[in-house]
Amino acid sequence: MLGNFMYWNPTKLYFGKDSLNFLDEELKNYGDNVLLVYGGGSIKKNGIYDKVIEILKRNHKNIFEDNGVMPNPTIEKVYEGVERGRKAKCDLILAVGGGSVIDYAKALSVSIHCDEDIWEKYFVRFEEPTCEIVPVGSILTMVGTGSEMNGGSVITNFSKHMKVGHVFKENVFPKFSILNPEFTFTVPHYQMVAGIYDIMSHILEQYFSDTDDNTSDYIMEGLLKSLIHSALIANENPLDYEARSNIMWTATWALNTLVAKGKTTDWEVHMLGQAVAAYTDATHGMTLAAVSMAYYHHIYKYGLAKFKRYAINVFSVDPKNKTDEEIALEGLERMKAFMEKIGLVMHLKDLKVTEDMIDGIADSTFINEGGYKVLTKEEVKEILRESL
Amino acid sequence: MLGNFMYWNPTKLYFGKDSLNFLDEELKNYGDNVLLVYGGGSIKKNGIYDKVIEILKRNHKNIFEDNGVMPNPTIEKVYEGVERGRKAKCDLILAVGGGSVIDYAKALSVSIHCDEDIWEKYFVRFEEPTCEIVPVGSILTMVGTGSEMNGGSVITNFSKHMKVGHVFKENVFPKFSILNPEFTFTVPHYQMVAGIYDIMSHILEQYFSDTDDNTSDYIMEGLLKSLIHSALIANENPLDYEARSNIMWTATWALNTLVAKGKTTDWEVHMLGQAVAAYTDATHGMTLAAVSMAYYHHIYKYGLAKFKRYAINVFSVDPKNKTDEEIALEGLERMKAFMEKIGLVMHLKDLKVTEDMIDGIADSTFINEGGYKVLTKEEVKEILRESL
Repeated sequence: MLGNFMYWNPTKLYFGKDSLNFLDEELKNYGDNVLLVYGGGSIKKNGIYDKVIEILKRNHKNIFEDNGVMPNPTIEKVYEGVERGRKAKCDLILAVGGGSVIDYAKALSVSIHCDEDIWEKYFVRFEEPTCEIVPVGSILTMVGTGSEMNGGSVITNFSKHMKVGHVFKENVFPKFSILNPEFTFTVPHYQMVAGIYDIMSHILEQYFSDTDDNTSDYIMEGLLKSLIHSALIANENPLDYEARSNIMWTATWALNTLVAKGKTTDWEVHMLGQAVAAYTDATHGMTLAAVSMAYYHHIYKYGLAKFKRYAINVFSVDPKNKTDEEIALEGLERMKAFMEKIGLVMHLKDLKVTEDMIDGIADSTFINEGGYKVLTKEEVKEILRESL
Repeated sequence: MLGNFMYWNPTKLYFGKDSLNFLDEELKNYGDNVLLVYGGGSIKKNGIYDKVIEILKRNHKNIFEDNGVMPNPTIEKVYEGVERGRKAKCDLILAVGGGSVIDYAKALSVSIHCDEDIWEKYFVRFEEPTCEIVPVGSILTMVGTGSEMNGGSVITNFSKHMKVGHVFKENVFPKFSILNPEFTFTVPHYQMVAGIYDIMSHILEQYFSDTDDNTSDYIMEGLLKSLIHSALIANENPLDYEARSNIMWTATWALNTLVAKGKTTDWEVHMLGQAVAAYTDATHGMTLAAVSMAYYHHIYKYGLAKFKRYAINVFSVDPKNKTDEEIALEGLERMKAFMEKIGLVMHLKDLKVTEDMIDGIADSTFINEGGYKVLTKEEVKEILRESL
């Protein structure tokens, strides 16, 4: 736990089959005008929309809807939503959906009372909000991003081929989030496993750095083991409540600032994946899956002790009579086998990436410090080519 | 993660060598009158007192002191402190010390504006506060109880031979806690390892229950491995900053409500240990250590699968060609070896418990449901006798 840090996570979580019941209580804390933000309408099919509307109505809220939030929410959509929120004079933004919807809600929350150009302010200059922030509450229906308990907001600018995340401070975190694992049951298998890999990647982005004996690394190994265990069950039976609930809880704790404490991070798999998505609009978790194997094979030598530890502690590789390199590589092989078993996309070509897009994607890839190896642009291209 | 629950932990933590610097900022949030609560004066010897006074003075606070908080704070001391806090019209209680001091500060915080008898209200009837709560901030100088980020307050009534904990809700949690691992360097070895075992016991009290695959169990295995790893280092070299910082962080997360989520618990080792302390005034962690081995040997058969998992995942017992019982017992043997290695008290007689006290201690022991075995009074006596 080297270094100085502050930990504060004020988000209130309601978890379980009956957690929506707490929405009544929470609504009392906010004004009358609620901007209800959601995606393509799956919440209308599975009945969640009706339940939420009923609760809002019995609490005498004025409901303003902002729907159609897409999987990679665009800055154009944010501009529209800001206008809608202003007209509604909204006192609360209630996001019903997955990470994209909650990320989008946060972007609105810091923009409705902001006079500046919000793309430039938040996603180019990465400034903190200087205006009043509209509170956000969330009802989670898809698991992965951890957006329900953090300040992350990822917005895409397709005209600039940019998918950029701003990590806002605690004042932008959702005030409350409602986590009912059953609300995730109707998510298609492809989206479910993409979410699972997103969680796994969040943990690994924070795990693969430093050489100290940080408590955070031990917590992450526990989260990884729980995730892999439950993912294998959910892959066979998506309606297994216990598995889905463990996955949901793991997702929240994988990216709510806790396991990053005392660590440095480069988030390079996300940098690669987000660049791929900015070109292809592919599902976030799948972009991460498709580049991970090539990336980790490029960097494991620079963090060999940790990759060895990963193999032994997470994938139960027996270290007897093996070199550190053999152990590390066996761990990566087992990780690959796990990924294939749950049906993740292992090649960029399956996300419609073609050879001629590599240079452009590499140009859009941020290269960060904080991990085991600061990539060169040439290495980024190699990793992308090997991922094809 | 079966069941429904709410997770909310509003305490703000400042961690690291420079964390006291944030006290200035926090003090701005509170009124002028600060009740400074501390223990026997060790903070005057190690310089922490002077640093805190300097910061309070430069923020123009009126300082009212309440010192002499004992390791097992008594209800009589609480009554005195309440009077002191009332006279001071205190706006903030600043607790500088270990868990006892912070527990005591919380007892004051819910009592200063309370007209009822506080022993009866909080420690017999276990009611929630109905009065204004004075905010508490803490500066931690001894590690173990997790009181810096939870609502626990354990108070002793020697005349009734009762040591009782009330777990208050989030409105009683410290508003902020300052965790500088260096502030724990001067704690004597005996107290350091007692604190380490207190942490270990907190985790085990929550780990040994249920048969489901709860994410919390995986997180606890990570915390246990980190704790054991760092404890062995700190035992050899108490000035190892990294080890002490990992222990400090583990203590906070072992008992801030997180790892209890989705679990049932009986806290039976604490029930036994607290009854011992009510008769002997012995150091908390040592009372837990002295009864643990006998207790776990009494209950492991009722939770064999979990004790087997504990042996393999925490103590790396090789399960090959062994029965579940052999694996579980080998785990407990390794646990015992670890405890002996760091110098814990393994027998009640070393805490001045004698045979003739057994019946009385057994009478003072609460017996709870929620673990693998609800003890009979006879079993409580057997465990205490075997622990002698």
